[in-house]
Amino acid sequence: MSKNKPTITSLKGVYASGIAAGIKANGKRDLAYIFVPNAFGSAGVFTRSAFSAPPLKVTKEALKRGTLKAVIINSGNANAGTGQLGYKDAQETATIAAKLLGIKPSQVGVSSTGIIGRPLQMKAVKSGLEKLLSDPTTRDGTAAAEAIMTTDLTRKEVFCVGKVGGKKISIAGFAKGSGMIAPNMATMLGFLVTDGRISNVNLQRLLRTATDATFNMTSVDTDTSTNDMVLAFSTGETGRAITGTKELNEFLALLTKACGQLARLIAADGEGATKLIEVTVEGARNLREARVIAKNIINSPLVKTAIHGADPNWGRVLAAAGKDPSAKVDPERVDLTFAGAPVMRRGKIVAHSRDKIRKLMSAKEVKIHLNLGLGKSAATAWGCDLTHGYVDINVSYN
Amino acid sequence: MSKNKPTITSLKGVYASGIAAGIKANGKRDLAYIFVPNAFGSAGVFTRSAFSAPPLKVTKEALKRGTLKAVIINSGNANAGTGQLGYKDAQETATIAAKLLGIKPSQVGVSSTGIIGRPLQMKAVKSGLEKLLSDPTTRDGTAAAEAIMTTDLTRKEVFCVGKVGGKKISIAGFAKGSGMIAPNMATMLGFLVTDGRISNVNLQRLLRTATDATFNMTSVDTDTSTNDMVLAFSTGETGRAITGTKELNEFLALLTKACGQLARLIAADGEGATKLIEVTVEGARNLREARVIAKNIINSPLVKTAIHGADPNWGRVLAAAGKDPSAKVDPERVDLTFAGAPVMRRGKIVAHSRDKIRKLMSAKEVKIHLNLGLGKSAATAWGCDLTHGYVDINVSYN
Repeated sequence: MSKNKPTITSLKGVYASGIAAGIKANGKRDLAYIFVPNAFGSAGVFTRSAFSAPPLKVTKEALKRGTLKAVIINSGNANAGTGQLGYKDAQETATIAAKLLGIKPSQVGVSSTGIIGRPLQMKAVKSGLEKLLSDPTTRDGTAAAEAIMTTDLTRKEVFCVGKVGGKKISIAGFAKGSGMIAPNMATMLGFLVTDGRISNVNLQRLLRTATDATFNMTSVDTDTSTNDMVLAFSTGETGRAITGTKELNEFLALLTKACGQLARLIAADGEGATKLIEVTVEGARNLREARVIAKNIINSPLVKTAIHGADPNWGRVLAAAGKDPSAKVDPERVDLTFAGAPVMRRGKIVAHSRDKIRKLMSAKEVKIHLNLGLGKSAATAWGCDLTHGYVDINVSYN
Repeated sequence: MSKNKPTITSLKGVYASGIAAGIKANGKRDLAYIFVPNAFGSAGVFTRSAFSAPPLKVTKEALKRGTLKAVIINSGNANAGTGQLGYKDAQETATIAAKLLGIKPSQVGVSSTGIIGRPLQMKAVKSGLEKLLSDPTTRDGTAAAEAIMTTDLTRKEVFCVGKVGGKKISIAGFAKGSGMIAPNMATMLGFLVTDGRISNVNLQRLLRTATDATFNMTSVDTDTSTNDMVLAFSTGETGRAITGTKELNEFLALLTKACGQLARLIAADGEGATKLIEVTVEGARNLREARVIAKNIINSPLVKTAIHGADPNWGRVLAAAGKDPSAKVDPERVDLTFAGAPVMRRGKIVAHSRDKIRKLMSAKEVKIHLNLGLGKSAATAWGCDLTHGYVDINVSYN
């Protein structure tokens, strides 16, 4: 495990680790914790799926009661579609962890990802927690980041530093997700810790805003999961609380940067993906329309397959951009570029070398830029190409 | 060409044929016409895409002026994203055809499908029309049905007979479409002719209703095209006009049956498809929610890949059903069956043999039945599995 890069446990007062508890059949790491004993604030954003899984209920209830100090995360089993038993199991997980950490059960969040519809292996969870929390002040954020992976091929960690109110603030985090990634948060888990001192109410508001601009603009396959959550903790280590519009906006910018980096890592690691696709829509009449259009482009299987083939297929991009009548597009005003190369200006094809653009589009990251020429709103969405690999992973999964 | 099955030209007063005019590079049939010289009524339903193609504009304008008597359809080139030139070309196509048919240009609809963004090959269209319409009373509906195919592997024809007001009525038609098939009509063309005598106004209203329940519930890949249209003609041959709620409802049922059969053929021939998927949602609070949920299931790449693998993955179906917060689902009320075999009742898993269900799901057609237990509304959607074939076709297309 590389210890070169800073991780969440590089922050003072933050402990985390991950072990193999036997929940995953393949013997890989599957149980993790984050512990912030002196947490100043916490916040959470959750899936909007009607089939929200039991661990989310337990974590939402805990957040309502006060500030979270810890979260237990397991991979290998989503504890979803498990009804009352699943809820009891999630509660028991929190209770056992609380005892081992010396805090209240209502201070522990629970998060699960993996197969849906099978009871959580509580025997493995119980013995795993005793091992995992035998020293609750372990500082191995990278092991935790690894333990939450499912079909992910890469660990996804971020560490951002910026100034808020003239003071240096850090935000560290990790995430998982590679399939079922879609609008409204898919099988996507994200955990962030900041040393900035920020209250529950402010952290909650800014986490929602940052999530809408980043995780919720990330789509691998339009499928939303039952288990998505993003949790954030504030250690409060930097002293004076972040307040006032200017400081809160500075903090929001840093939080959005951290979430955005994780979102890009998730999109790039989409199931079967060979390329990251970034779609930026500018000149929309309003933010909602910019986001709808950016998402419709990033979600289009025809765009995704075209990008896989390094094909500057502007027809497919425009067809996707125009498919929702509630988001205005005027065909005679659009400017479009692929990988920085203009192909359309004010709705007219501009002379371009298809071979040259194909070469640019052979990179691991392809940017599509669409200016609608109608207003001042912009949005960016992240996704990936659609390949044989995606089909293979999802036909054989389960 | 098989002449055994009845086709649109089996109806009295209906002429049609199709030839190879050289628009397609592969030398296959690519230019067709339908001619109903004594048309009593006509109607059209069009894509809602903001990038609606020029031929649709010409056809809409013609429908506004009165009753269509003919339509010229080409495949191989969509005449989309072609701006003013495309509009002129579509108009010229109608004008030339009108002259050859001895009718007014405003009585001719134009319809195109194929590659987007390249000027229509008017030289080929002109010489093709002279050949195609050298005898405008050819009765080869099957040749017309073949000439509108693009990536379609099968010709899609329908012939339905039923009673309206106690009288025998026929509706015949053909369609094309295999990719970019999605809500709000994708690269989907449908042409229907009835001998029932029905006015423009009534035919328009019923065609919209039937389209919403059938073509618009068909999805291969969520992508909506710039060129979709469904046109319907009434020859009026059966005499007395169809009027009154009862007769109009009987006609609507027959029209919905005809459109539904074409929609199923389109879904089954989805690009790369090996299976037709039919999703029925019952017990919804209202029709809108039933349709939203049925479409979200049929559009889910995770459901599509699971069905490809004959996997009764109820977790993915429920995740897709619950993803739009605007359409109510109560996890504790759902009944779910795969291929007729119950897997969930009132939100609880029922004992089932996974192997037995997998065998049932290995058929060419897989039905998913979801009862929400919330109300009385129902909707059916059609789609297909997601395979390597889909990726191959769309990476190399163009």
